[in-house]
Amino acid sequence: MSDIQALTQRIDQLEHTLGIEQDVNQIRRVQYSYGYFIDKSQYNEVVDLFAEDGEVWFLGGIYKGKAGVRRLYIERFQTQFTQGHNGPRYGWLLDHPQLQMIIDVAPDRKTAQVRGRSMMQAGLHESAEGSQRAWWEGGIYENRYVREDGVWKIARLAYFPHWHGTFEDGWAKTPIDYLPMASVTYPDDPLGPDALVDPMPRLWPATDVVPFHFPHPVTGAPIAIDNSRAREGYKD
Amino acid sequence: MSDIQALTQRIDQLEHTLGIEQDVNQIRRVQYSYGYFIDKSQYNEVVDLFAEDGEVWFLGGIYKGKAGVRRLYIERFQTQFTQGHNGPRYGWLLDHPQLQMIIDVAPDRKTAQVRGRSMMQAGLHESAEGSQRAWWEGGIYENRYVREDGVWKIARLAYFPHWHGTFEDGWAKTPIDYLPMASVTYPDDPLGPDALVDPMPRLWPATDVVPFHFPHPVTGAPIAIDNSRAREGYKD
Amino acid sequence: MSDIQALTQRIDQLEHTLGIEQDVNQIRRVQYSYGYFIDKSQYNEVVDLFAEDGEVWFLGGIYKGKAGVRRLYIERFQTQFTQGHNGPRYGWLLDHPQLQMIIDVAPDRKTAQVRGRSMMQAGLHESAEGSQRAWWEGGIYENRYVREDGVWKIARLAYFPHWHGTFEDGWAKTPIDYLPMASVTYPDDPLGPDALVDPMPRLWPATDVVPFHFPHPVTGAPIAIDNSRAREGYKD
Repeated sequence: MSDIQALTQRIDQLEHTLGIEQDVNQIRRVQYSYGYFIDKSQYNEVVDLFAEDGEVWFLGGIYKGKAGVRRLYIERFQTQFTQGHNGPRYGWLLDHPQLQMIIDVAPDRKTAQVRGRSMMQAGLHESAEGSQRAWWEGGIYENRYVREDGVWKIARLAYFPHWHGTFEDGWAKTPIDYLPMASVTYPDDPLGPDALVDPMPRLWPATDVVPFHFPHPVTGAPIAIDNSRAREGYKD
Repeated sequence: MSDIQALTQRIDQLEHTLGIEQDVNQIRRVQYSYGYFIDKSQYNEVVDLFAEDGEVWFLGGIYKGKAGVRRLYIERFQTQFTQGHNGPRYGWLLDHPQLQMIIDVAPDRKTAQVRGRSMMQAGLHESAEGSQRAWWEGGIYENRYVREDGVWKIARLAYFPHWHGTFEDGWAKTPIDYLPMASVTYPDDPLGPDALVDPMPRLWPATDVVPFHFPHPVTGAPIAIDNSRAREGYKD
Repeated sequence: MSDIQALTQRIDQLEHTLGIEQDVNQIRRVQYSYGYFIDKSQYNEVVDLFAEDGEVWFLGGIYKGKAGVRRLYIERFQTQFTQGHNGPRYGWLLDHPQLQMIIDVAPDRKTAQVRGRSMMQAGLHESAEGSQRAWWEGGIYENRYVREDGVWKIARLAYFPHWHGTFEDGWAKTPIDYLPMASVTYPDDPLGPDALVDPMPRLWPATDVVPFHFPHPVTGAPIAIDNSRAREGYKD
């Protein structure tokens, strides 16, 4: 191999490796933007982050394609939280800090996977009209991304809340089955998901681990999960 | 173009692109250091993070240049929070986690813009002398950075708290106009800002979106903001 | 120097610099994985993150080598928190978000240092068996990493909680000396540390600054620390 060929190979490799670092930063930007948009009920901007065949997993339901994504964010959340308005409403808080992202880009740079978390606060100020509430919420994301025409988009936003608690009483006193999980699909439920997550997740005080998309970073082995005691305290 | 010329061009591009990745990491380091210094009332170290003509936006006031930055951090905060001491005071908490940074470096690598957030806790332990209080606070930064002689410095730290709440009662019960916004400038107010932010921000339960310095990461369009309902619950 | 030599030197430098950026991302991944594993009491997976001669600093004790690391995470925490089970237990929360990492890789890429923080929540749901409690906790890490056979591992995880508070009363009312610091070493205490941290840290409402492993990012000077008033409120 000539000197020129050898240098060319090294430059090829550098461009590929640096490209992946840029992908990681860009995917982080998209996911962080998701958080900022949700903070302020900018639902149109949220929907625009998704690929055409993107999907959302939320409380056991899978909302498929742009139609499903819109059904969840626009028809359901925007109606429920901001009375149909695309933007923040006086006295309505929905903080979604985006934290602790572990981002893996496929070698062909066409897809990626992201584990992350949020530590949410949400609810209504006492001077605003509506049902008074204020809660904390912790959750894990295991998301997928796709690069189309050079642009990274959300292919799957899969959110697994792992606890809820009111501001007043906290997660130690959260009622069991605090929120209903998805059970009826669209169109039987006009705001329902297109499919149900299988197996159906169960909320805190269940403590199931969300499977990791990546291997153990030191041993390289798949990360084993033992959920055998994650639900044992249920009386039902 | 010769082989050598072609390789040289690719190497030039790699050096530029990698330089920007390093800039991003360095800017993140400066902003994270800001958080660690504020945590512990290391105000001299905070002031040293700013460029000579840097400025701070705080509660509707703009503190300009090193003199303004010192007025806010040293003359005001250090006096008020740590009795003139440059370092932590027994029983005084001022946690400023620095989160969710979206960092954009200009193509010439001389300036940068950063959106970020904090999720603060602050107040006084009951065994410490002073006015007892303990609060939570969420806020958004839209900061600017400048690179001088190869060193990244804060050009503008613009902080927009978007809610406050006491530990006991939380943000759902925060009194309206919880904190006074800046109204009198320096030197009429010897600790006041050099100018006022225009338009003047209003605190939670107002929910105005802080404008984004970056375009929508998928569509590339400017991020539209509709604050038409962000203040509608005010009775005044 | 020939054109080829000049290009080769630039490529060498690019490979080195990009390698450090990859190291930073990999170290972040290891530290973030630590957080996810601790969240769910995956203690075997935590122990696997450490180098053979790695160590942990916890509440004034130093647990040395894999034997010491196992003593803390497996023999002590796993027994105490999850009744000997390697995985999550129903109703037991131990959220460890990993935040604000400042990562410095040595020029030879064999070691690294990391400052970071957590903003924890932990305790037991009221429906689970055991002592009812729910607390918040903030803390600083000053960790060390080592690269062995190309794999980054934790060489020292040094955790300094800087406040605790119950969910109900918060950190403003935390009893002084809330938790006992390490005092008896192994094997006199069969679950004790191999050595004691010197000087022994003291908990909130003490406010000592944890020394920074890095210089001031703008001035380049060592970051001076003045803890002279960090403990002055103690009556003892």
